[in-house]
Amino acid sequence: MSNTEASLLPLIESGPGAGTPCCPPLTERPFTADEAETAARMFKALGDPVRLRLFSSIASHAGGEACVCDISDVGVSQPTVSHHLKKLKEAGLLSSERRGTWVYYRIEPSALAAMGGLLTAPPASA
Amino acid sequence: MSNTEASLLPLIESGPGAGTPCCPPLTERPFTADEAETAARMFKALGDPVRLRLFSSIASHAGGEACVCDISDVGVSQPTVSHHLKKLKEAGLLSSERRGTWVYYRIEPSALAAMGGLLTAPPASA
Repeated sequence: MSNTEASLLPLIESGPGAGTPCCPPLTERPFTADEAETAARMFKALGDPVRLRLFSSIASHAGGEACVCDISDVGVSQPTVSHHLKKLKEAGLLSSERRGTWVYYRIEPSALAAMGGLLTAPPASA
Repeated sequence: MSNTEASLLPLIESGPGAGTPCCPPLTERPFTADEAETAARMFKALGDPVRLRLFSSIASHAGGEACVCDISDVGVSQPTVSHHLKKLKEAGLLSSERRGTWVYYRIEPSALAAMGGLLTAPPASA
């Protein structure tokens, strides 16, 4: 259990609106309303097929980072891509940095780890 | 890599609309449109605070199972609870069984594990 706690506490360190420490594994105890709000925001961010495709494109790119010019082949317009990348940033799953002409997006491994921690399976009674 | 494949292939075995084998970790390669549809359905199911509270109530209940009578204290009406439980079932995250008067809901550990597998962190280049 101390392993789990250690991996979950810092949760998400970047991304606007996403610095709140949150939450135990879903199997540990009923979530409070606040915990559920925080965790739902992250799940919701990945609950859209286009966002998942963009996120997996960035996450699987060399170094977990990609230029927006590398990831726009998902069949939606550039404004739509930008909209979805913004949602992922707001949920703390991506960070971005402008370099010259292009904006580069990078996944936040701590956010992925925190979401994975929420999904830790129960102690084996099920 | 064979570890990953073995743990992910069966993915979700129950729940209507959720038997499709799916998907590598998000960090492995860009998702196809079909993979993204399947995975997004699961994330979206947990992307709502009330559903997360209900799910964590069931998941943390003894044996990973709870009667609907045990989990209705989340401040929404009974029809709303039923609606959200149905969504969780459709996503393959819960199964249910009627026993006498009550319906019992049980988490699907394989679905939790599959979602956790999607969130596996990248090899450390990030």
